[in-house]
Amino acid sequence: MSHLRIIPLGGMGEIGRNMTALEYEGSIIAIDCGWMFPERDQLGIDGSIPDFTYLRDHADGVLALLVTHGHEDHIGAIPYLLRDLNIPIFATPLTRGLIEVKLKEHKLLASADLRTIPQTARLSLGPFQVEAFPVSHSIPDAVGYAVTTPAGLVVHTGEYKFDFTPTGDRRTDVQKLAEFGARGVLALLSDSTNAERSGLTPSEEAVVDTFDRIFASAPGRVIVATFASNISRVQQVVDVAYRHGREVGVVGRSMQDNTSMALDLGYLTVPQGRLLRINELDKLDDAEVAIVCTGSQGEPTSALTRMANNEHAQVKIRSGDTVILSATPIPGNEELVYRTINNLFRLGASVYYQSAPLPGNGGLVHVSGHAAREEQKLMISLVRPRYFVPIQGEYRHLVLHAELGASLGIPRENIFILDNGDVLAMDETNAAVVEEVQADTVFVDGLGIGDIGQVVLRDRHHLAQDGFLVAIVALSQAGELLEAQLVSRGFVYAPDSEALLEEARQALVTAMSEHAHRVPEGVEDLVKTTLGSLLHSRTRRRPMILPVVMRV
Amino acid sequence: MSHLRIIPLGGMGEIGRNMTALEYEGSIIAIDCGWMFPERDQLGIDGSIPDFTYLRDHADGVLALLVTHGHEDHIGAIPYLLRDLNIPIFATPLTRGLIEVKLKEHKLLASADLRTIPQTARLSLGPFQVEAFPVSHSIPDAVGYAVTTPAGLVVHTGEYKFDFTPTGDRRTDVQKLAEFGARGVLALLSDSTNAERSGLTPSEEAVVDTFDRIFASAPGRVIVATFASNISRVQQVVDVAYRHGREVGVVGRSMQDNTSMALDLGYLTVPQGRLLRINELDKLDDAEVAIVCTGSQGEPTSALTRMANNEHAQVKIRSGDTVILSATPIPGNEELVYRTINNLFRLGASVYYQSAPLPGNGGLVHVSGHAAREEQKLMISLVRPRYFVPIQGEYRHLVLHAELGASLGIPRENIFILDNGDVLAMDETNAAVVEEVQADTVFVDGLGIGDIGQVVLRDRHHLAQDGFLVAIVALSQAGELLEAQLVSRGFVYAPDSEALLEEARQALVTAMSEHAHRVPEGVEDLVKTTLGSLLHSRTRRRPMILPVVMRV
Repeated sequence: MSHLRIIPLGGMGEIGRNMTALEYEGSIIAIDCGWMFPERDQLGIDGSIPDFTYLRDHADGVLALLVTHGHEDHIGAIPYLLRDLNIPIFATPLTRGLIEVKLKEHKLLASADLRTIPQTARLSLGPFQVEAFPVSHSIPDAVGYAVTTPAGLVVHTGEYKFDFTPTGDRRTDVQKLAEFGARGVLALLSDSTNAERSGLTPSEEAVVDTFDRIFASAPGRVIVATFASNISRVQQVVDVAYRHGREVGVVGRSMQDNTSMALDLGYLTVPQGRLLRINELDKLDDAEVAIVCTGSQGEPTSALTRMANNEHAQVKIRSGDTVILSATPIPGNEELVYRTINNLFRLGASVYYQSAPLPGNGGLVHVSGHAAREEQKLMISLVRPRYFVPIQGEYRHLVLHAELGASLGIPRENIFILDNGDVLAMDETNAAVVEEVQADTVFVDGLGIGDIGQVVLRDRHHLAQDGFLVAIVALSQAGELLEAQLVSRGFVYAPDSEALLEEARQALVTAMSEHAHRVPEGVEDLVKTTLGSLLHSRTRRRPMILPVVMRV
Repeated sequence: MSHLRIIPLGGMGEIGRNMTALEYEGSIIAIDCGWMFPERDQLGIDGSIPDFTYLRDHADGVLALLVTHGHEDHIGAIPYLLRDLNIPIFATPLTRGLIEVKLKEHKLLASADLRTIPQTARLSLGPFQVEAFPVSHSIPDAVGYAVTTPAGLVVHTGEYKFDFTPTGDRRTDVQKLAEFGARGVLALLSDSTNAERSGLTPSEEAVVDTFDRIFASAPGRVIVATFASNISRVQQVVDVAYRHGREVGVVGRSMQDNTSMALDLGYLTVPQGRLLRINELDKLDDAEVAIVCTGSQGEPTSALTRMANNEHAQVKIRSGDTVILSATPIPGNEELVYRTINNLFRLGASVYYQSAPLPGNGGLVHVSGHAAREEQKLMISLVRPRYFVPIQGEYRHLVLHAELGASLGIPRENIFILDNGDVLAMDETNAAVVEEVQADTVFVDGLGIGDIGQVVLRDRHHLAQDGFLVAIVALSQAGELLEAQLVSRGFVYAPDSEALLEEARQALVTAMSEHAHRVPEGVEDLVKTTLGSLLHSRTRRRPMILPVVMRV
């Protein structure tokens, strides 16, 4: 009997660039193909994507990409995948819409093979029988996939929570999950993001209650920032605003793109023409205005950040405005988010955000889209898998989710915390990591894909710390020093440091005359040593020193 | 009648570099003199300190520095102050001990005028009658100061919470605060740090309970990371460890320095010689070992981070170890903290931290040292000030604290949210911001104090994003191009980009021959334009381009 192979190609133990391959006798389907935003020490990088090497090397067997939902960390790398492999892509309508926006930017839409599926789709792909099933998440039209293989049934949850009163009718299909459990599930790949959170993630209802209270008491405009993809949250703002006699304007390019697409596809329910552009709001009283915009993560070029910096062309924050940040800061973004909040307060706005005291007694301006621990237990209990593979989350979330699985009785040897590239091979009776395939972090920087590695990042880090100094030494053909020049940036403020730089230049000239016998072979070392030690003794800084020897 | 002037010289609306001056008829006392750790966009900076310009300009009137407690953000800039003004410094014994450690490093201890005071000191300083009063905080020996001036009584809380069951007998003196209120308080300057948190900050008792549970069930070593200055937390670890039959070792230089100083001064109660060095623990069974160490903020060179990276010479993390991070990540440190936690899990440890599920039903591995909203209300209600100045916290905390004061009936016109350098002048009947004095952010970078400004930071930011390219153009005296060389770092990975760099060099040579008439006057622009547009079109990156023209 052959083995089913489960291979994470990105996103395992990290937040972003999700991609998992399922392989059976050389046939491969991939689930998700996401982007990852840079970590703080990935200086100057735009982001990173999964490593497609394994798929390229087995291109003939790759049958399809299945997409769970339209978030960046699940669809953002599709344009890069399509350059290597133009495989069919299966997605629900809203997810497809978001992929199309992306492919259009990359001029790949015409050539892509996109196939729309319902949330309950059944597909036959080589040896794989695929069933999609709906899940609640912080974006509509999210699904998980159950894949029947000759080795057994694999359930991939996508990203989910069990919200029984979501906005719209977007419940996780518990009946279907129970049916999979009854059929017998070989492996469960389940969302670990909130494995630190006890209890249940509150329903979207909780946000509506809080919005109602804030909108009722706000004296002027209400401005709500959230993720551009959080169409359900936009719907909530619209519903609450209309209930309180306010019109809604949409600000921020990605928010406008997404809302008009969602309107077209019917995922946002607003009377024809009632969603306004910002200039149309100017005619209204402040108390009749609500604005939905991007910037809940403090992104430097987003609408809310520009408003907070008083740099937004159309929306000037003023006393009387109420601003709601309806999102959680993603780890690493806290400083930017709080800076935005501080700046909004400075401009006189009332600001409500997750950690702030809210009007009345508590409340929530945001709820997570991910299952908390009791929901994770429910998922495992419904699906009752033989093997359990926590996915989606940082490493600690995978460990905590694995421990939670063990606490429900899954034998520890049946639980696998994988790394990217691990090949987990299984049949009905055995499972083991049998090999490791290439699955590196592939950085995207401008047009470069995978060309930036540790050397460039280390250099950028060094430059960020202490700047650089290039020492240009012109030698005659006889080896005689003709000229020495220093060029420096990011090290000292040059106008105030002329004396120091001239001292360094003189030290260099002296050293070169004293060690003329070392010139030119040892001149680079001489330059580095002479300048490095002088500058360090004067400043306790260590700029990157680069000697350039010219023979003229 | 003259006015009392309250002047924040650092720390207002920011976390760190706290310093407030009180001035009456030319006599000045300053409270605290703190360090601030760099924000994420302050690249390469060691930190920042208050601006001493105003004090230098009025040096004759500056009578003393009063210190509230020994945290870095209250004492860290003292060595820099003493270079300008060698004034007497008043501090309680532990605070003085921590200042001494710092002055020793800076070789300033011999010349400093340090004066030890009890927590209930009374001092007469020119027109100021100073009374210290004890407060609970996350370090022992913390005080606030009540300063009687001819204009009225000013109360500065320092950093406080109302913990009625702290470790040791370190309660905030509520009786004393009520007495000030009864006497009549002109102005209250009060800690705003936790103005977002509703309710009460839990007592230190809560941490002991959780430690007890974790220590009772841990199969191997227990390693607790906290701030080196959190002597009370160290005491808790020691007490719990001994109760569970474990010896305690101290790891990390600053933790060792602080614990031995606290032992000497009697702030840490441990039987003589029982606190062990790490090599002495090796003889014990794992279940008999507890370790206290630094690194709760994921600081790259700290003990815990090195353990997590498997780079610590003496402590190798292994399966069976239990690690507790007994601290909250300071905003901006989350990514580093979570990376440390992920790495500890990877090495097989059980890790407990604030946001993780704890054994049993909940619990706390850390409590804040700052008053939450109900305690802030208690402080205001005890002190009953005429004027209220929220201090210590980011801008949003000051606003929320101000609103809280207003909700207790302080008229809004009597509440002042100040900026650094604002001069708040008051007498018994009036208060207003009357002028603004210089109070910039003074960056420290190596030996440089205040020499790094926005230009250097902008350059470092540019270099961090896309690196640089120096183009060296050697011209003959006749203006003829002799040689062109490019040097680049942090832009592309040079070994893979030889073709691109050679293409750029050729483009430069061509441009210079085509535009020979512009040479040498316009050569710098020509170099920048030619290389900038070529490289951007090829890479979509914008390295810093620096032309160097040499005439040889």
